[in-house]
Amino acid sequence: MGRPRVGVLSRRLIGETALRLLDDDRDTGFRMSDLARALGVRVSSLYNHVENKTAVFAEIREILAERINGEAAPDPRWDRALHNWAHAYRAAFAAHPSTVAYLSALPLDPHSTVGTAYDQLASQLQDAGWSTAESMSVIVAVESFVLGSALDASAPQDMLDPGDRTDVPRFAGAYIARRELAAAEGVTPADLAFALGLDALLEGLRLRLERAAA
Amino acid sequence: MGRPRVGVLSRRLIGETALRLLDDDRDTGFRMSDLARALGVRVSSLYNHVENKTAVFAEIREILAERINGEAAPDPRWDRALHNWAHAYRAAFAAHPSTVAYLSALPLDPHSTVGTAYDQLASQLQDAGWSTAESMSVIVAVESFVLGSALDASAPQDMLDPGDRTDVPRFAGAYIARRELAAAEGVTPADLAFALGLDALLEGLRLRLERAAA
Repeated sequence: MGRPRVGVLSRRLIGETALRLLDDDRDTGFRMSDLARALGVRVSSLYNHVENKTAVFAEIREILAERINGEAAPDPRWDRALHNWAHAYRAAFAAHPSTVAYLSALPLDPHSTVGTAYDQLASQLQDAGWSTAESMSVIVAVESFVLGSALDASAPQDMLDPGDRTDVPRFAGAYIARRELAAAEGVTPADLAFALGLDALLEGLRLRLERAAA
Repeated sequence: MGRPRVGVLSRRLIGETALRLLDDDRDTGFRMSDLARALGVRVSSLYNHVENKTAVFAEIREILAERINGEAAPDPRWDRALHNWAHAYRAAFAAHPSTVAYLSALPLDPHSTVGTAYDQLASQLQDAGWSTAESMSVIVAVESFVLGSALDASAPQDMLDPGDRTDVPRFAGAYIARRELAAAEGVTPADLAFALGLDALLEGLRLRLERAAA
């Protein structure tokens, strides 16, 4: 007997399929009927595994969060741990930019992997001397920078190109110089802005913690 | 004779109406036919002013950029100018979160107001000692932080609430402590994270510039 062509229907398979549909068509998203068709099942079968479309997005978040947690190497230094988390987080969301806007407004599920990752980071920050309240703000601030950077990384590389416009010479020069520097370093212009911004953000946070401790 | 109920159809009025439709229904966006209905005109009339839906989004960007430029007080210090720009920018996009994902991937129009604002910032950064290439990365990095922060500011305030979950005690404590601190200061939790992150980012950038000059 042959094996079935698709895996047994599950919440995880539904989430993975929805993520693929979102990647294929960034503008229009997906309907539950699209999802059922892509999986070769009836729409009613989906509802044995997910209550609604919100639950599909919640599962997408778990898939991305597990990837991030798997990629982000822990580090005994809180700033290095945040650095590793930010890099893994940006890579996961830059690969799936259409999820950023939706997931950034979707309430966390109880028992979400995201909560567990936040708990590990909050513990490390608090142990390093951050106040309980500020540990949360640090995580959210780094996350905001990462999500904006993921959108930038997934945008067309020439979206800011001033072309032959002559009324913005300092901007045009900066645009070309950044592109040439990125080419020379073998990275994208978005990579340069992300690295510079993350370094500056973490350096500023280190200073703030030192001053609070002094 | 009475005045007409709506203004004379124009690119600007079409953009303002589309922005209102996006605000009303964050998930589904708008069709050109929705836009025509909201304006009480035929779809064909729209095409006398905008070539397509992309042009409508480009006009929305101009509307938001003009608001930002009007709100962001110039400052002779580059870091204060960036601070003012970031605050005005976040406020404009937090009021219209459904535009963030789309506009962050839409190529700049020639003669866009955004290009003019970038030129002013790039001039100021270069005059202060930033290299031409880095002036562009600084602008993009601050912009990424702002766009992520705008998404956070527009998300439900309790979206990270761990509720009665007991397996993430340091995260739960941090969540509650930040909420209480925000209430005591009369701001939102998102405001705290934005202020802390922007301060740290600008502080880190100041340090980087000082070291480059040394």
